[in-house]
Amino acid sequence: MAYYVGIDLGGTNIKAGVVDSEGKLINKLSIKTHAERSMEEIIHDMGKLAKDAIEDAGMNISDVEAIGIGSPGTPDNMEGLLVYSSNLPFNNAPMRKLIREVIDLPVYIDNDANCAAMAEAVAGAAKGTKDSVTITLGTGVGAGVIVNGRIYSGFNQAGSEFGHTVLVSGGLQCKCGRKGCFEQYGSASALARMTQEAADANPDSLLNEVIAEQGHANAKVAFIAMRRGDKKAEEVLETYMDYLADGLANAVNTFMPEVLVIGGGVCNEGDPLLIPIKEKTMSRPYFGPGVRKTEIKLAQMGNDAGIVGAAMMGMTCAIDGINGK
Amino acid sequence: MAYYVGIDLGGTNIKAGVVDSEGKLINKLSIKTHAERSMEEIIHDMGKLAKDAIEDAGMNISDVEAIGIGSPGTPDNMEGLLVYSSNLPFNNAPMRKLIREVIDLPVYIDNDANCAAMAEAVAGAAKGTKDSVTITLGTGVGAGVIVNGRIYSGFNQAGSEFGHTVLVSGGLQCKCGRKGCFEQYGSASALARMTQEAADANPDSLLNEVIAEQGHANAKVAFIAMRRGDKKAEEVLETYMDYLADGLANAVNTFMPEVLVIGGGVCNEGDPLLIPIKEKTMSRPYFGPGVRKTEIKLAQMGNDAGIVGAAMMGMTCAIDGINGK
Repeated sequence: MAYYVGIDLGGTNIKAGVVDSEGKLINKLSIKTHAERSMEEIIHDMGKLAKDAIEDAGMNISDVEAIGIGSPGTPDNMEGLLVYSSNLPFNNAPMRKLIREVIDLPVYIDNDANCAAMAEAVAGAAKGTKDSVTITLGTGVGAGVIVNGRIYSGFNQAGSEFGHTVLVSGGLQCKCGRKGCFEQYGSASALARMTQEAADANPDSLLNEVIAEQGHANAKVAFIAMRRGDKKAEEVLETYMDYLADGLANAVNTFMPEVLVIGGGVCNEGDPLLIPIKEKTMSRPYFGPGVRKTEIKLAQMGNDAGIVGAAMMGMTCAIDGINGK
Repeated sequence: MAYYVGIDLGGTNIKAGVVDSEGKLINKLSIKTHAERSMEEIIHDMGKLAKDAIEDAGMNISDVEAIGIGSPGTPDNMEGLLVYSSNLPFNNAPMRKLIREVIDLPVYIDNDANCAAMAEAVAGAAKGTKDSVTITLGTGVGAGVIVNGRIYSGFNQAGSEFGHTVLVSGGLQCKCGRKGCFEQYGSASALARMTQEAADANPDSLLNEVIAEQGHANAKVAFIAMRRGDKKAEEVLETYMDYLADGLANAVNTFMPEVLVIGGGVCNEGDPLLIPIKEKTMSRPYFGPGVRKTEIKLAQMGNDAGIVGAAMMGMTCAIDGINGK
């Protein structure tokens, strides 16, 4: 069995763990990012955490084949740089070089959404498949695409910005500059916005009561109000799920993945979301006669997706002979 | 130099030619399809045409490595079948087996839109790139996706049905069953429809005159009327190009190809279409700071795209060791 270290870099925490070649997480460690620090200090700590994770697993550096890093922003895995990150002080940061000053292993870098998709493909909901897409519904709509067992992120490694494909031409303004992006209609934030709008327009709806209980309109409110029998909540969810299914069906028609994985907090709602979403989504893609259909599944890797996916991304890069030194 | 035969199967004609490994077409032959015939007769003729093309090029079967077939419909390249085609009498047609009864070479099958994309990637507008997307604007919107030098058509080989991604949620009914597909807004047929609608709504517009000249509203009418100074024609084109650019920008954000190739008769309009389309499209995708941008180019392979692309698809399958026997 070969072993890899995965580092999950976030704005709040840096996590690292040793992962075997089947995607099993052996151990994990976590430290605060302290994003106000310099780029050099943060990257130095990432290298040190990788070293600590190996020791903590009772292993030596020589037992590990490579380090994979999942980072927000735009990586350049060929040059070993983090080109840009909106929440961290990285600007063409020489991540590979600086990590290798701390720990002498090949270092590979990719986007965190791509790494999450890799984790699902190796050890999660899309295990055993070669082609899968993982879509995460959160503040935005994140997408990671696996083609033939490898992360697909385009010629420029800018990733599949599937959340920024227009679903409603001329629709709501998106922060990316376009109008009507999928993200504006299918994210958890979109559901929260639709909930607030319906509450404002219908003062008698239970939605207002639940918003008061929750402190604000979040993605749970409509589900709670629906379970209490509120008609408006049902309508909000119907509208949201119609948009979401349109976007998911677009992903199916575009990529024809064996499994389409959906994740993010809103998926914790379970069957009241999943059953209609599966039905609506799968009634829409274009499968010709005799063609095998995509399966829709819930993400399974949870909080470990970042570490496991980064490690497995590192593994595929090492196998493919990409220079990580 | 290695040689391959490409067969371009269409509803009207069957074309075949010998192509070298750099995508250069050595010769080509063409016969009528006579689609009213039985599947066996048509496939037999395809095999015979391949044989004739080799002889016509002054070569022997042993000089050729493999045969690639580009066909409308859904192929199963693993089993060597054409699963389904809407315009031809093929239903799980054992294409590989029947062709090999006529000519003893490995036989590979893929969709014609995918083969066109392969032709552009090897020898046309996307030559020298690994990741490209070719979008053809015709009756529908066809898309072929090349990832890492190979056709990407999903786990089920159903292809990238990018024309059937929703661009206008709840919009115009598409023949695929969905509402608001890109195809309904970005195809040449869509432009013809918008032209007719504007002509009907504006009896004084020159659009009506040009429609009478052309015999019906086609995709050329608005361009001709615009050149004669018609304001309504300009508006129609502005609307059409806004939708088209939205769809093309979706393709860029989704695939981040090095080159996005656009083809189809409407592209013959040249600069009046291309200049605004490039400007509109490239102002929309999401490129982070420091990220290399996709280039938009016109298709270059013309009528030979089918033969060359099929042959090059056959080449990549042979190189990858896919069983074609």
